[in-house]
Amino acid sequence: MEKGDNHKALPQPTVRRYPVYLRAIRAKRARGESLVSSAALAAELGLDPVLVRKDLAMSGVPGRPRLGWSAQALETALAAAIGWNHPAEAALVGAGSLGKALMGYGGFREQGLSIAVAFDSNPDVAGHEFHGVKILPATELKRKVRRLSLRLGILTVPAHVAQACADALVEAGIRGIWNFAPVRLSLPDGVVVQNMDLAQSLAVLSHSIR
Amino acid sequence: MEKGDNHKALPQPTVRRYPVYLRAIRAKRARGESLVSSAALAAELGLDPVLVRKDLAMSGVPGRPRLGWSAQALETALAAAIGWNHPAEAALVGAGSLGKALMGYGGFREQGLSIAVAFDSNPDVAGHEFHGVKILPATELKRKVRRLSLRLGILTVPAHVAQACADALVEAGIRGIWNFAPVRLSLPDGVVVQNMDLAQSLAVLSHSIR
Repeated sequence: MEKGDNHKALPQPTVRRYPVYLRAIRAKRARGESLVSSAALAAELGLDPVLVRKDLAMSGVPGRPRLGWSAQALETALAAAIGWNHPAEAALVGAGSLGKALMGYGGFREQGLSIAVAFDSNPDVAGHEFHGVKILPATELKRKVRRLSLRLGILTVPAHVAQACADALVEAGIRGIWNFAPVRLSLPDGVVVQNMDLAQSLAVLSHSIR
Repeated sequence: MEKGDNHKALPQPTVRRYPVYLRAIRAKRARGESLVSSAALAAELGLDPVLVRKDLAMSGVPGRPRLGWSAQALETALAAAIGWNHPAEAALVGAGSLGKALMGYGGFREQGLSIAVAFDSNPDVAGHEFHGVKILPATELKRKVRRLSLRLGILTVPAHVAQACADALVEAGIRGIWNFAPVRLSLPDGVVVQNMDLAQSLAVLSHSIR
């Protein structure tokens, strides 16, 4: 099986746990441990040992009975699966308050993301640079995203324009959208979306402390 | 039933949907509509009509058979349940890259959150102000959070100090924690946590575009 095919086959819940495993494995390696047991990892992370063993097995790294997995091989395989070794370049749409907050966040690169360019329809904002990222007019979105062959889009626009912006991104070749707009996007098959509605978490917290 | 008791009784999935309903109801009111039907709202949001009717009924606003709910009454009740009319004041711990991004985000206030004060253990950062929020030394956390009677904490610290910071917040009276640190916190009963591990969503996106 090609490595690429292997990656495509990973289920989403497994992929979501990979960063969690990766951090734990890196911490183990930093402590000088060279082997990882799924049972120990599961206990440390409060997860089901069977689930952890399956997740790790899906990385393609062979585990050795009784010994466990090579920490180094696991780190390499998991990092490759979620792009931590080669940050994906993304287009950010909507350089308002939240968009700028994300542009200013320095922690993305080590989590597999690099914001290559931003777009905004506001002429006062477009043309400027923010934390080293150029903000272009929204009219240039399709051409630029195509030219840079970007596959990842970050949507930080108001709700009422989110679907139109998503459509433009998809038309330009974007395959994954990180959606911070409080809207369920309608997207063609093959385009993956991750919704981050900050208001929903905040609602739970605000409600709980009242 | 007291209004407060009523609020306490709302299940978390319902509360998470309230911001979604609220935005839709506000849009309806802006279009001049004064009545909300759960069926229409469900269709618009792609949700199960029975679920929507139950969620709205739990707000305590009486629906009228065939007519539906008063849009204004629903807006008031839902906004009260999730604090959109009275932003909760929060303490932010960890004024690094992500912490500052959140401090600089102007959209929280209308979503029921106001960052009252921030803390950081780095002496170069403590003592400064960022977007109008004072950053105090971490040593002042307990005293200050108690004095301001804050109930909400935002954790934007590195993983290895997250639990200790959470413990300090809880000891100082915090009842809800918005946790951006990539760690499962161990918290006493009665303290609500919402985990926001950005790396997990990013992992799914990065994996999907490979």
